[in-house]
Amino acid sequence: MDITEFRKHAHDMVDWMSDYLSDIESYPVKSQVNPGEIISSLPTHAPENPESMEDIMADVKKTIMPGITHWQSPNFYAYFPANSSYPSILGEMLTATLGVQGMIWDTSPAATELEEVIMNWLKDMMGLPKDFYGVIQDTASTASLVAILTARERISEYQINAIGYFTNKYRIYCSTEAHSSIEKAVKIAGFGKEALVKIEVDNELKMSPGKLEEALKGDIMDGLIPCCVISAVGTTGTVAIDPIDLIGDICKRYNVWHHVDAAYAGTAMILEENRYMIKGIEKADSYVFNPHKWMFTNFDCSAYFVKDKEALVKTFEILPEYLKTNADSVVNNYRDWGIQLGRRFRSLKLWFVIRSMGVKGIREKIANHIQWAGELSELIKKDAHFKLHEPQNLGCVCFQLNEAIGENQEKRNSLAKNLMDSINQSGKLFMSHTKIKGEFTFRFVIGNTYVTRKHVMDSWTYIASEASKNLKNV
Amino acid sequence: MDITEFRKHAHDMVDWMSDYLSDIESYPVKSQVNPGEIISSLPTHAPENPESMEDIMADVKKTIMPGITHWQSPNFYAYFPANSSYPSILGEMLTATLGVQGMIWDTSPAATELEEVIMNWLKDMMGLPKDFYGVIQDTASTASLVAILTARERISEYQINAIGYFTNKYRIYCSTEAHSSIEKAVKIAGFGKEALVKIEVDNELKMSPGKLEEALKGDIMDGLIPCCVISAVGTTGTVAIDPIDLIGDICKRYNVWHHVDAAYAGTAMILEENRYMIKGIEKADSYVFNPHKWMFTNFDCSAYFVKDKEALVKTFEILPEYLKTNADSVVNNYRDWGIQLGRRFRSLKLWFVIRSMGVKGIREKIANHIQWAGELSELIKKDAHFKLHEPQNLGCVCFQLNEAIGENQEKRNSLAKNLMDSINQSGKLFMSHTKIKGEFTFRFVIGNTYVTRKHVMDSWTYIASEASKNLKNV
Repeated sequence: MDITEFRKHAHDMVDWMSDYLSDIESYPVKSQVNPGEIISSLPTHAPENPESMEDIMADVKKTIMPGITHWQSPNFYAYFPANSSYPSILGEMLTATLGVQGMIWDTSPAATELEEVIMNWLKDMMGLPKDFYGVIQDTASTASLVAILTARERISEYQINAIGYFTNKYRIYCSTEAHSSIEKAVKIAGFGKEALVKIEVDNELKMSPGKLEEALKGDIMDGLIPCCVISAVGTTGTVAIDPIDLIGDICKRYNVWHHVDAAYAGTAMILEENRYMIKGIEKADSYVFNPHKWMFTNFDCSAYFVKDKEALVKTFEILPEYLKTNADSVVNNYRDWGIQLGRRFRSLKLWFVIRSMGVKGIREKIANHIQWAGELSELIKKDAHFKLHEPQNLGCVCFQLNEAIGENQEKRNSLAKNLMDSINQSGKLFMSHTKIKGEFTFRFVIGNTYVTRKHVMDSWTYIASEASKNLKNV
Repeated sequence: MDITEFRKHAHDMVDWMSDYLSDIESYPVKSQVNPGEIISSLPTHAPENPESMEDIMADVKKTIMPGITHWQSPNFYAYFPANSSYPSILGEMLTATLGVQGMIWDTSPAATELEEVIMNWLKDMMGLPKDFYGVIQDTASTASLVAILTARERISEYQINAIGYFTNKYRIYCSTEAHSSIEKAVKIAGFGKEALVKIEVDNELKMSPGKLEEALKGDIMDGLIPCCVISAVGTTGTVAIDPIDLIGDICKRYNVWHHVDAAYAGTAMILEENRYMIKGIEKADSYVFNPHKWMFTNFDCSAYFVKDKEALVKTFEILPEYLKTNADSVVNNYRDWGIQLGRRFRSLKLWFVIRSMGVKGIREKIANHIQWAGELSELIKKDAHFKLHEPQNLGCVCFQLNEAIGENQEKRNSLAKNLMDSINQSGKLFMSHTKIKGEFTFRFVIGNTYVTRKHVMDSWTYIASEASKNLKNV
């Protein structure tokens, strides 16, 4: 392929992309293929000779598309969104073309400096403290691992980095509702799963600060060393909001690193009325939210903020001869701010999104999603088949079968799972689930870039009618 | 921006992209900006109102482009390549548009299954053992961390994951020439830098198997526990090839995990004549090479292979309720094969590249790069200002100032660095450096997708003429 052919194929691709995004609602939201179906329809060996872009795109249509779950469909309500947007895609096109590897300032100053500027924009947009330093990580899993590692080094006075674990008395704390990535990070960092203390939650599934303080006190009495508390502004199951102001005070009192995981909910801080959720954030040591979830920016793009930049860099810094440059003493070299050496130019898509939508445009979309989630919640409350989980927070609506459906929890769970599977198999919409005290709970998260009130209402109408059809009248 | 405007802007973007790639040689290869220059020309706050794509692209031209180091220029010879290609960019466009988050099979079966197929293609293309399991990681830094963590868990019988470090007697081994990511990974994994034993290299900068065995024996005698050996097929400094066949035997003998880092050189295994470099690879436990370096596929895309899939998954697996699906028992859920939960659909661009170029097309480009590196080496040998570092391997040419230039090493190093800085500042080409036994060494790596013999020869002519102009005659 030469540049002339590339230009032609890229224009064809743009038409394919635009057609796809126009027609996205004609696809079943959740892929309907069976395990192994795609593998069995692909050749077992790479082609020796070049194949035409026409053939490749024909296979995309025939083989790949049936295996796609359409995360960008307005009727995708599962998990949390991993949404994109038109300006974000344009940003990704530019990123791929420049093909910059921004491991250090010198290898593309614009990648480093734009990242610094945009992270500062985000602090301002989201009401985050001015003394935080921002850096883009790939995912919140990585960001939380980075926080835990930095906390580990600060408490050990950088001795674990130097000589390894000399005690297994460190303890990490999160609630029973914290994301699975916390346990994964604790294992990776070498603390061991047993070092992770899961603090009980209250009836609203928020971490109990009293229980946290009890645990910290007890552990210290037992000669253990509290290292890090991870609280959630928006748990993954139900978007419960841990009381980070109180937790922050406790962390200060016991000299423990406080990391706040707001992966999904963080974007909602663009609306001042939601900032009560991060009241006290200035006491936290680190904070993460994912523009790639709810801020219309392609995955992966996770915004990580840390107060003690020196501790972060001291945890990760390396400086081999082949990476030394003339600018090292006066610039940020982000290779020392995380796990990986290599870095994509990820701030570009974020810059495109913020400028093209304006802060106002982002704020309006987020406000709409939250508003519609509230409206949907009211409808669920009025439907006798269902019970709304409350408090309902932001764009995430959790609901269960009414207790009168099915004689016991096991029976209800089976009915609920069958109902969800059949709704998802219809292809009309895709939602996911969690469990609350053993009870199967539907999760319906409104956050797609181009979702409208009508999509939400039509989806609800379908869910309600399927419930009427398949569940007994109550 | 609506879909009609997106279509228009995306077509404009394609023209921008094509023009950029056509004109790429008109830009200075290495960015010429000073630290802080870009930051100071960007607004300190995000715009409240939407801005037009025309304004954004005008700022790309005015503010961003001067800060770009052009990794895709054929005259980029620094570090290792992070090359792209026309089909890869098309693949990235599609990836960004589908916006799939492939954390588990269920969230897009095509992402998981295409990845499995392509990793198998790569095994076949590169002469890797059939009993390896492949998975895409973001970078070799991450892949090596994953290998070291898996080795840690296997040797501790998964007890570090469970209860944390109960001894600090584990030891990790690599050569003094190993990549800095190994030390970083050892620190992250909690072994501590002191647990990393750096094995001496021979005159060709390859790890000495004798010294390795000595170290292992000595450590075992001292009650220490060897955990993992990392060898390099192609070190970062000079592409030295560690003798992995002999190292593999030693690892087997001492029951130590053997991880092989072929981040750059791995792509050259597409040519059978290079496979002597990975003779004995079937004895290794894990292997990584980066299609995003030399296989014309956009960063990030690192191909990681492991023999003991169970050990890998046991190291990373998590299964919270909200990620359980009906297919879990019969499919690969790649979230359990690495650090992050979220995953981009990265196999797509690799599929595009392999099919569009054909294995033959890739093979030809790699053979050319290696051929031209050989030709350049002959020219360097004939130039009295320079001394070629030998053996010269693959596309990487390392050379130093002749000893007769400058009375001592310090003087020579300063002359060499000034020469490199002035060549890089010319904008005509970009090369980087390393040090060999304290001697400043130029690294000139031929690996860009669209580099030709003429680019290489013209670059050499310029380097030689600058040397003649600035260095004394010898």
